[in-house]
Amino acid sequence: MLSDMDAINLDAKLARISEHWAPRSVARLNDYDIKVVKVLGEFVWHTHADTDELFLVHAGRLTIRLREGSVELGPGELFVVPRGVEHQPYAEQEASVLLIEPAHVINTGDGQPGAMTRPVEPI
Amino acid sequence: MLSDMDAINLDAKLARISEHWAPRSVARLNDYDIKVVKVLGEFVWHTHADTDELFLVHAGRLTIRLREGSVELGPGELFVVPRGVEHQPYAEQEASVLLIEPAHVINTGDGQPGAMTRPVEPI
Repeated sequence: MLSDMDAINLDAKLARISEHWAPRSVARLNDYDIKVVKVLGEFVWHTHADTDELFLVHAGRLTIRLREGSVELGPGELFVVPRGVEHQPYAEQEASVLLIEPAHVINTGDGQPGAMTRPVEPI
Repeated sequence: MLSDMDAINLDAKLARISEHWAPRSVARLNDYDIKVVKVLGEFVWHTHADTDELFLVHAGRLTIRLREGSVELGPGELFVVPRGVEHQPYAEQEASVLLIEPAHVINTGDGQPGAMTRPVEPI
């Protein structure tokens, strides 16, 4: 009944990722993707009209810039960007983040794909 | 538009919890509850017929017993129990765990409430 009974180790998954801002799926929870991503520098401003988006910092520090201000996250800290709220993730130094949102979500948000648009592949 | 722009610090939330096996909600992601729980000893065997359930260990070690074997999780390790799969969480020493599942889910699973059934309240 279970195809895989191994624990999923976030550090081991992250060690296999070199590209920044390219989320990789480590598990599925119903119709949600559980993803890890390495980040460095600025992502694009974007919005997800149809879904909230959870950021949980695994290592390093992440800033989530919002039009109303910004949220600073360190390891073991999370923030949910509500649907429809424009945001720009930013990391001054490399950080590792757990992302959770429905599986259909495009990383660069609604609208045309851009230079930072990436498909989410398993790792 | 945003009612709260504070980071959610898992250690700070967990420091306010004393009861074991009583999940508390720290955030909402669409119709999912993001919960923290302190665990110690054996939980009851139970099943969620309609949903997968994500366990991510924050501190300590958690065993998820399954009828086919068991999964051992340490900090930064996660496992998704698929819907319909009977499981019994167990921790030899106190551990802290992030739980993610739809907001309607009862902690003791399908069937009659029992001695370990708890409502999920925010913290």
